[in-house]
Amino acid sequence: MVDSKQVLKNLDELRALTADENGAQRVAWTPMWLKARDWFTEKLKGLPVEDRYDAAGNRWITLRGESDKSLVLGSHLDSVPNGGWLDGCLGVIAALEVLTGFAKQYNGKPPYTVRVVDWADEEGARFGRSLFGSAAFAGNHSIAADRVRTDRDGITMEAALKNCGIEIERVGDAAVEQKDSAAYLELHIEQGPILESMNKTLGVVQGTKGVERWAITFHGQEAHSGSTPMEARHDALAACAKLALEIRPIAKKHPQSVATMGSVKTFPGIVTAVVGLCETTLDMRDLDAGVLAGMLREAREASERFANEEGCTVEWSKIWSIEPIPFHPQLISFCEEAVVEVMGSSERLPSGPLHDAAEVARIGIPTVMMFVQSLNGLSHNKAEDTRREHLEQAVEAFDRLAQKTMAWIGQTG
Amino acid sequence: MVDSKQVLKNLDELRALTADENGAQRVAWTPMWLKARDWFTEKLKGLPVEDRYDAAGNRWITLRGESDKSLVLGSHLDSVPNGGWLDGCLGVIAALEVLTGFAKQYNGKPPYTVRVVDWADEEGARFGRSLFGSAAFAGNHSIAADRVRTDRDGITMEAALKNCGIEIERVGDAAVEQKDSAAYLELHIEQGPILESMNKTLGVVQGTKGVERWAITFHGQEAHSGSTPMEARHDALAACAKLALEIRPIAKKHPQSVATMGSVKTFPGIVTAVVGLCETTLDMRDLDAGVLAGMLREAREASERFANEEGCTVEWSKIWSIEPIPFHPQLISFCEEAVVEVMGSSERLPSGPLHDAAEVARIGIPTVMMFVQSLNGLSHNKAEDTRREHLEQAVEAFDRLAQKTMAWIGQTG
Repeated sequence: MVDSKQVLKNLDELRALTADENGAQRVAWTPMWLKARDWFTEKLKGLPVEDRYDAAGNRWITLRGESDKSLVLGSHLDSVPNGGWLDGCLGVIAALEVLTGFAKQYNGKPPYTVRVVDWADEEGARFGRSLFGSAAFAGNHSIAADRVRTDRDGITMEAALKNCGIEIERVGDAAVEQKDSAAYLELHIEQGPILESMNKTLGVVQGTKGVERWAITFHGQEAHSGSTPMEARHDALAACAKLALEIRPIAKKHPQSVATMGSVKTFPGIVTAVVGLCETTLDMRDLDAGVLAGMLREAREASERFANEEGCTVEWSKIWSIEPIPFHPQLISFCEEAVVEVMGSSERLPSGPLHDAAEVARIGIPTVMMFVQSLNGLSHNKAEDTRREHLEQAVEAFDRLAQKTMAWIGQTG
Repeated sequence: MVDSKQVLKNLDELRALTADENGAQRVAWTPMWLKARDWFTEKLKGLPVEDRYDAAGNRWITLRGESDKSLVLGSHLDSVPNGGWLDGCLGVIAALEVLTGFAKQYNGKPPYTVRVVDWADEEGARFGRSLFGSAAFAGNHSIAADRVRTDRDGITMEAALKNCGIEIERVGDAAVEQKDSAAYLELHIEQGPILESMNKTLGVVQGTKGVERWAITFHGQEAHSGSTPMEARHDALAACAKLALEIRPIAKKHPQSVATMGSVKTFPGIVTAVVGLCETTLDMRDLDAGVLAGMLREAREASERFANEEGCTVEWSKIWSIEPIPFHPQLISFCEEAVVEVMGSSERLPSGPLHDAAEVARIGIPTVMMFVQSLNGLSHNKAEDTRREHLEQAVEAFDRLAQKTMAWIGQTG
């Protein structure tokens, strides 16, 4: 029986310890993050667990079972700067209470091993490399690129990691933790408005959407705003503005697609000159790889049409992409059962944001996530919030999911 | 009889002396500008003229006539960084040759005084204050604001002026030079593509367009690009993009109107966030005050409609404006006659860019400008160019305009 009130108590404690008037400040590889991890050490007192860090800085709390086959539960304690009180830490703190429940239920020795993982640097807030620890676990690390990343003060990622006891050239060794991992479960706040708009407390996550992230540059002709007639212009901003509006009908053809132009930069960018060069970014997501590829193709064709209409040219340069990662069908069913048992009904939805669970799922470890409603869809700022009774219901449903998954591990290979 | 070939020779000399591989570098209040002015001193040798600077750094070359009533001819030697070989200096160098012609024609004593003015800092390239010298002449100075302007190295405008012998608190004294000014004529390159598109060499400038220059800020809601459904967004960039496209039909209703969105800034401006705040600038120009006011009203209404459609709000903040400044009807006629005599036909057009002539005209001194064709409409960069035969024809027509105006001064008050 999980103690959901203890989860709330711990969340409140952590907030008091690691937030200031602007929100949570548990940025990975900083003293405040280490302070949060030290606080978590106290929460392990009296539990029959092993506690250690892997080569990438992920923390593993292990309750040994009759079998080495492991049920892994986790999330991340790190936050963005000026972050919320729930993003990441809810999943770690809830996981520890579920583990505690298993320890009591089985007198310290459950049939299968239970592990809580606190992934290192999910947010990538300081060095721009998100999912750092879970990617290393999944063998998906990028040591050469990460070594030279710097923060805004010019400190390299390599030096910051070393300061936390991590040797960057060894982070790939975290992959040894994959051994015996039979299932991975993660509870997280939704960070979006979908559950609230449906008046649902909890949701079953079908998987994480694929992402296509591109830099797009329109080249026109800088010209004097006073002496250049409207019909003689090659206005790079006009071509960009058309694309900013066109990505919306492209995304709206599909019920769960999103497309975002998040940044526009104009050059020379002065009040008295027609824009000669316009740099912008596009982020598109969908759970279906074919839908996502089609959206990308449509946006690209539209950009070329608009560039042509405006006497401009356009270049596309890939920033990053990831394929859609569906979660495990059986675990999705268990998650749905657990949510229905607690709430009476359930809802399936994809995750637009990426999560550590995506890295775990892509290497074939059966994985599912549960979402709890976010108020006003807000996250990554201090206004992030979820009703306290919803958090308690989430912990109860997550515990049920863990129980069902534990039983299922016994039936698998 | 003006020596138009000497004008070309002087332009070539000045280019060789003050341009590098990136173009002209005669930025006001810099050593290269002072070098250009020193070079100009040599060109005065043997002329029966007085040469002095007023309190704002404008230079006045005076050929005393029988009457103190003065025909003033001029432009500016300063350039933007990486500027062209003609912008500004053509008008000063041509004016000196016209003065030289008057000196010969009248054995050093024309019926009316002829003055060449080299206005100080027309471009405002270093401190962002254009028309500095001519504004001071017109009593339209802004000492308090100018004193604290700084260049990109943090040097104040006050210090830079002092270094050139100008005391900023005294620049208003330049207004004494208004005395006896009976007419002002300025020859300039068009800096736009209109004359070339009409296959015309020379044009008569009707006046300078009025300008409305505004900063517009759209306020939406920053949101996660992955978790926020399309229909739940308050996308400040989308509202801005609609306005960027809508200002074009608004301007195109009027044959000579222009409207330019020159700068867009997005916040937070990252690939993974819906734009919560979008700052942009609008510059609109027309020769008719009523047309300009109507365009401004239409753009403002459109921005409010778009903000509303996107669940955003919008704020307008004025950067700067100037009313349309029509040139003198009689001088426009003389200019047209002069152009027809040299070229066989003429064209009237407004000036989109501002010029020192606008400051002179707004205080009631009869003023007109003549434009010579720019190749490809380019200016403010090293590609700025005009055919050499067109420059010679421009000088000949400008001399004819000066002769007609000299005769007319005798008939006025």
